[in-house]
Amino acid sequence: MDTSLAIAEVHLTPILIADPPLLNTQGVHQPYTPRLIVEVVTRGGVTGVGETYGDGEYLALARPLADSVMGLPVTDVNRLFSLAEAAECAAAGEQGEQGPDPAAADVAAGGLRGVRNAAKLRLSVVSAFEVACLDALGKTLGLPVHTLLGGKVRDRVEYSAYLFYRWAAHPARPAFETPEDDWGAALDPSGIVDQARRFADAYGFRSFKLKGGVFPPDEEIAAVRALAAAFPGQPLRLDPNGAWSVETSLRVARELRDVLEYLEDPASGTDRMAEVAAGRAGTGLPLATNMCVTTFPEIREAFARDAVQVVLSDHHYWGGLRNTRELAAICRTFGVGLSMHSNTHLGISLAAMTHVAATVPNLDYACDTHYPWQTEDVITRRHAFEDGCLTVPDAPGLGIELDRPALAALHRRWLDDDGTLRERDDAAAMRLADPAWTTPAVPRW
Amino acid sequence: MDTSLAIAEVHLTPILIADPPLLNTQGVHQPYTPRLIVEVVTRGGVTGVGETYGDGEYLALARPLADSVMGLPVTDVNRLFSLAEAAECAAAGEQGEQGPDPAAADVAAGGLRGVRNAAKLRLSVVSAFEVACLDALGKTLGLPVHTLLGGKVRDRVEYSAYLFYRWAAHPARPAFETPEDDWGAALDPSGIVDQARRFADAYGFRSFKLKGGVFPPDEEIAAVRALAAAFPGQPLRLDPNGAWSVETSLRVARELRDVLEYLEDPASGTDRMAEVAAGRAGTGLPLATNMCVTTFPEIREAFARDAVQVVLSDHHYWGGLRNTRELAAICRTFGVGLSMHSNTHLGISLAAMTHVAATVPNLDYACDTHYPWQTEDVITRRHAFEDGCLTVPDAPGLGIELDRPALAALHRRWLDDDGTLRERDDAAAMRLADPAWTTPAVPRW
Repeated sequence: MDTSLAIAEVHLTPILIADPPLLNTQGVHQPYTPRLIVEVVTRGGVTGVGETYGDGEYLALARPLADSVMGLPVTDVNRLFSLAEAAECAAAGEQGEQGPDPAAADVAAGGLRGVRNAAKLRLSVVSAFEVACLDALGKTLGLPVHTLLGGKVRDRVEYSAYLFYRWAAHPARPAFETPEDDWGAALDPSGIVDQARRFADAYGFRSFKLKGGVFPPDEEIAAVRALAAAFPGQPLRLDPNGAWSVETSLRVARELRDVLEYLEDPASGTDRMAEVAAGRAGTGLPLATNMCVTTFPEIREAFARDAVQVVLSDHHYWGGLRNTRELAAICRTFGVGLSMHSNTHLGISLAAMTHVAATVPNLDYACDTHYPWQTEDVITRRHAFEDGCLTVPDAPGLGIELDRPALAALHRRWLDDDGTLRERDDAAAMRLADPAWTTPAVPRW
Repeated sequence: MDTSLAIAEVHLTPILIADPPLLNTQGVHQPYTPRLIVEVVTRGGVTGVGETYGDGEYLALARPLADSVMGLPVTDVNRLFSLAEAAECAAAGEQGEQGPDPAAADVAAGGLRGVRNAAKLRLSVVSAFEVACLDALGKTLGLPVHTLLGGKVRDRVEYSAYLFYRWAAHPARPAFETPEDDWGAALDPSGIVDQARRFADAYGFRSFKLKGGVFPPDEEIAAVRALAAAFPGQPLRLDPNGAWSVETSLRVARELRDVLEYLEDPASGTDRMAEVAAGRAGTGLPLATNMCVTTFPEIREAFARDAVQVVLSDHHYWGGLRNTRELAAICRTFGVGLSMHSNTHLGISLAAMTHVAATVPNLDYACDTHYPWQTEDVITRRHAFEDGCLTVPDAPGLGIELDRPALAALHRRWLDDDGTLRERDDAAAMRLADPAWTTPAVPRW
């Protein structure tokens, strides 16, 4: 084995990135969102980068994993999974001495706090290491990441405009400068159509997804109808993040069957999704999910019950680009559609998404991305959409370059934070505007 | 893209390799079996090798595929599948002018002749090209094939002894020299135990598979019982190639439940396998298959009906090493066991099997291999089993070297053949001993 491929250094850099006041059923995005940038440096002096969630529970696992990958060749990505499991045990042991481990507490309570479960947390951390390893390997070999995945089957990857109900500005925080933008508020159908128009004009997006679950369903139905009128024949999606009852889900499915390409997570959990899926069968409208099928163990039951017709993959949740390809193979085999989910992310993850999407034959829909909402980045040259698409990079590795001054500044913001924004908490942000706010129980409507 | 990785030459070399008179429910192995050796040569001057079935229908598809991969980088293995589909159309068109295409005729008749269907044929051809590309890529980069698959998770791969009822010699053929060996006949329990003993002594195999479906079930039950007595506690398998009725399958399952680790393809087809699976549930004995689940489209129904508990993967059938990893991911996700099937093959395919097996976490059983029965090879240094295992090669590519004089001699045999042995036909071989022999209808017992 070529020892120059061995990992000699790992740098973990938690950052806070500006995020607009985007509304969802849980609350509103905070002004800054934590992300973690992972750099692996090989003995050969090549640096690869990856990006994932940056909340404390991810950092708590990333640190022991960083220790345990030292000396591992960047080719040995299959071993990251068992190393992460061992790191998780190490982290739990350390937390046992120092205090409760939030991930372990989540699992014990059967609950969630930003992550579904320990497996998803672990795989989300692994994904950043895997992407960093592939980036370093590609740079070492002079091959793009898509080539390391068997080669691209398309030259461009299409993305969808991600529409949000939003405020013009974040609620004021004492002694705190909040990021601003010029998008203005969007709180009704015409606001959403204006937002969509700007997305279409600026980036060429042809398909539109509206994050719903914010207003009563009839208002969101009206917004989708307004989009359909403004962009006739173009693909539309609505995603209330599981906020609706089965009955409401079925009503929306019936009312929007002629204009939606899919309805995303109308109800929470495989049971309700299966009920909705059975009830909507006559409408021909597929149900998509990034909530009830987010890990491999959840697939079996959901597919057996035909609870979802489209899985929205996410290389973070699923443990990297190679696992994403395996998920795609499973969907292909079981006749389930495939598209791609997005959470707040930067240009490293968008590059990773584009590389893997380029290699998957059964990518049936335009991928989601929050990217246009992020005004800050840690790469030197921002990705540029053309006709709603990104050209698949053919440069070595991910084809991006880390902007070190920008990374340092965003890390400085994380260091300076008193802790309140280091954990993403959309409900806490909402309470600044509505002190009585609590995370709504589902079904909300 | 590095143009030195582009394919500049493809060499297709059909060969005939010596095969002992091994019995199965269809008949007996012919004295020589056709295989196809695929070499891809890059512009950089690196040669990669692959191996697959060598019957005429495989050659008919391999030739246009060889033309269409010219100039393709050896990294672009994802594209082999669509190129092979196009090549299949080209081959069908050409055959349309020149005569019937055997594969197309098979499909039209809904029947088989050596291959299950057109997809399996196509993927079996693709597999040899994929393995050759990975071998060439690995040699170019100085990386073993397992590293190109994400890295090995074990250093040794365990194989199983493949026991056959057999004759001491092939039936005589006029004006034809048949290969000989010193194994002698094995036609009863003591013959099978002697064969197993020799396998164990010579190669260290710890698990044993008996190819059944040759004699009435009670004789084969007695042979397995004799093996269990001779090798107490060691894993045993019995595979009658679908020759039994549901009732017979269930009787054998009950009688051998305490000594078999799995029962392989007792009955033919997903319907019968599902019936057997339901009936044997109380025995705890898993059913394995390399017959009712051999392509991705067959998985869905078989898994939904719990017709099989172990899939025997085969990188030829499934379209290469990367598809084998995807099959493994599917089995992992659906709680189905995984092991590896073998047909008559040489050292190139055994190397390929070992590399992919080394990377699959959920390889639950020792892999099958015919390799010890093959006295001829096309590689310079034969694989050597130790404790029934092969050490995973860490040399670049597959870690093997083509023996060109041997290849030329085996190709000369193919050229000299009048056509009778270029198509594997176990029933035709059996008719030399029993002129009235026809392929038995299933269920045979």
